[in-house]
Amino acid sequence: MNKRIAVLPGDGIGPEIVAGAVKILQTIGTLYSHQFELTFADIGGCATDKTGTPLPNETITICKNSDAILLGAVGGPQWDSLPVEKRPEQGLLKIRKALNLFANLRPTTCYESLAVASPLKKDIIEGVDLIVVRELTGGIYFGTPSERTVIDGKPGAVDTLQYKNEEIERVIEKAFEIARTRSKKVTSVDKANVLETSRVWREIANQVAEKYPDVLLEHMLVDNAAMQLIRNPKQFDVIVTENMFGDILSDEASVLTGSLGMLASSSLSEAGPYLYEPIHGSAPDIAGENIANPLATILSVSMMLRLSFQLDKEAAIIEEAVNNVLNKGYRTRDILSPNSTIVSTTEMVESVNKEI
Amino acid sequence: MNKRIAVLPGDGIGPEIVAGAVKILQTIGTLYSHQFELTFADIGGCATDKTGTPLPNETITICKNSDAILLGAVGGPQWDSLPVEKRPEQGLLKIRKALNLFANLRPTTCYESLAVASPLKKDIIEGVDLIVVRELTGGIYFGTPSERTVIDGKPGAVDTLQYKNEEIERVIEKAFEIARTRSKKVTSVDKANVLETSRVWREIANQVAEKYPDVLLEHMLVDNAAMQLIRNPKQFDVIVTENMFGDILSDEASVLTGSLGMLASSSLSEAGPYLYEPIHGSAPDIAGENIANPLATILSVSMMLRLSFQLDKEAAIIEEAVNNVLNKGYRTRDILSPNSTIVSTTEMVESVNKEI
Ligand SMILES: CC(C)[C@H](C(=O)O)[C@@H](O)C(=O)O
Ligand SMILES: CC(C)[C@H](C(=O)O)[C@@H](O)C(=O)O
Repeated sequence: MNKRIAVLPGDGIGPEIVAGAVKILQTIGTLYSHQFELTFADIGGCATDKTGTPLPNETITICKNSDAILLGAVGGPQWDSLPVEKRPEQGLLKIRKALNLFANLRPTTCYESLAVASPLKKDIIEGVDLIVVRELTGGIYFGTPSERTVIDGKPGAVDTLQYKNEEIERVIEKAFEIARTRSKKVTSVDKANVLETSRVWREIANQVAEKYPDVLLEHMLVDNAAMQLIRNPKQFDVIVTENMFGDILSDEASVLTGSLGMLASSSLSEAGPYLYEPIHGSAPDIAGENIANPLATILSVSMMLRLSFQLDKEAAIIEEAVNNVLNKGYRTRDILSPNSTIVSTTEMVESVNKEI
Repeated sequence: MNKRIAVLPGDGIGPEIVAGAVKILQTIGTLYSHQFELTFADIGGCATDKTGTPLPNETITICKNSDAILLGAVGGPQWDSLPVEKRPEQGLLKIRKALNLFANLRPTTCYESLAVASPLKKDIIEGVDLIVVRELTGGIYFGTPSERTVIDGKPGAVDTLQYKNEEIERVIEKAFEIARTRSKKVTSVDKANVLETSRVWREIANQVAEKYPDVLLEHMLVDNAAMQLIRNPKQFDVIVTENMFGDILSDEASVLTGSLGMLASSSLSEAGPYLYEPIHGSAPDIAGENIANPLATILSVSMMLRLSFQLDKEAAIIEEAVNNVLNKGYRTRDILSPNSTIVSTTEMVESVNKEI
């Protein structure tokens, strides 16, 4: 197989963890005779420093000419005081829009060997296996107006939550498709008792559900979902929701297992390329220290192999290698537990590499 | 002391738990020679059934003529298919607006005797004592347009998140005032990396902070706040945020301790009357069975005595009585733990009453 991959390390620990994941990708390429042609490009604060914008046109072009994209993380305090359009996270928002990445998939799985790191009690967290499907290119993130204004003669500001029906429909369909390959339950999260967009969302979810009689659809209000994720996360299979609710709930879900440093995500468009990245951020406080956990990025690579290239066997090999390394007790410090062995970023990458 | 109190039992378990709280209020009145003049009024589904609207004008008038308001809970499945404006929760939204209840205070305290019921591990939850101050009369709950519309020639819908600067300022000031009486830390939660209203929110928080040099202000993004509440809830003292974020985060916070049935809330306006209610809902599934937990409503009464009537001693007596009853091992089934004694709603009320 011959594939072009755009690699966007970004800021903070981004370069370190991406280097590790690239190494694993290359090992897979060598062992199974795939050509992975990598093109590196800038995004985030480092891009602003070099070019004045967090998402240079060159990066967009490179991404569009690729079969898949691997992203590290963006952001850091040194860019916090820049004008909005130059800040690192604008690079993220723009790449989502430029590539039409409308569905963000964030699985949360409880690794048995790491359950001890969870803030939740064992009986609540063990066996959790859910995925949040977050709408990523619509809603209040992109609606206009979003500006300072005058309201009833007084200074104020406004943001706009807007959705076209078709934007709602396609992401809910995606959620149902995914549920079919899992436990066949979709929880659609909205605030239909307050928002008109949510009432439309709920109607469309009901319509889509008719096409998937084998999948169970349940509606849940966002405030209740925030509670249920803590009380009984095992009740969930696929959660689908709009952009802002998805931002909040997927981050909430990501800390349940206590191993945020293990969680990968993918962002899908209609025709590709898809984007893969760890859920965690750029952790500027530990950047360059060779202590960051590379596993979420390595698992993002295995997601890429599976979803973008249908290389299921190769993906499974990476996942197994990660599991083996965990079972041997190797841990970066974010997932440390009693009786485990602390390893550095590069040591962790090496261990996984050996298992492959 | 002579005070008029509007009592709005509402739907589901509302009438039972309010009856219990009223009993405690009357005991306090008798023992300490206060006249509490109670006027009952309808809100929610029962009001729609009787009058066609979930908040009859008569109820608004009664509330406006009171010194404080005690509310049970509203809602139930039998009203779910009514047109929006007749649904029970519209009664809530309308009373907030009619009485200008702009600041919703939701404390989450970990009762030592109940910590075992928490979904979180003991070391994370023990000692938690935070309060969410939620803006309650603005934001996306009340902004216009909120309607179906056409976007780029396609059917869609829109909601509007809008704030006047003065609405932001007054609720943040309230949070700082409250922090002064507590551990002197305010965490202002926003999504300033995406929303213009949040950027204004952050600026105003910084301005207000200058007037309270004794209080520490920290900013936190809403997605991070959703994580931090689970990872390390002890870091928080006062959290202040806009309406929708407050809805989600205060519900999330309310399940941390595992004793939602214990949590009271108050909603404050500039000139009063204030409204007091339990945080939990109307629990239609257990309505009428005499098993609901009346303690959150009883504690709402003690909040009322303290905040609206400055009856600190009487408030403390109720809180002590509740603590004593818990220490004796009496529990309604929602907070059941090993070696405790199950009691009914009325038995729980009786136990608290005896302690007073
Ligand atoms: C950085 C920020 C704009 C972004 C978002 O809110 O979408 C981030 O929180 C995420 O979830 O990827
Ligand atoms: C019933 C609903 C409209 C209400 C809200 O969202 O404000 C409720 O969830 C609450 O928090 O009081």
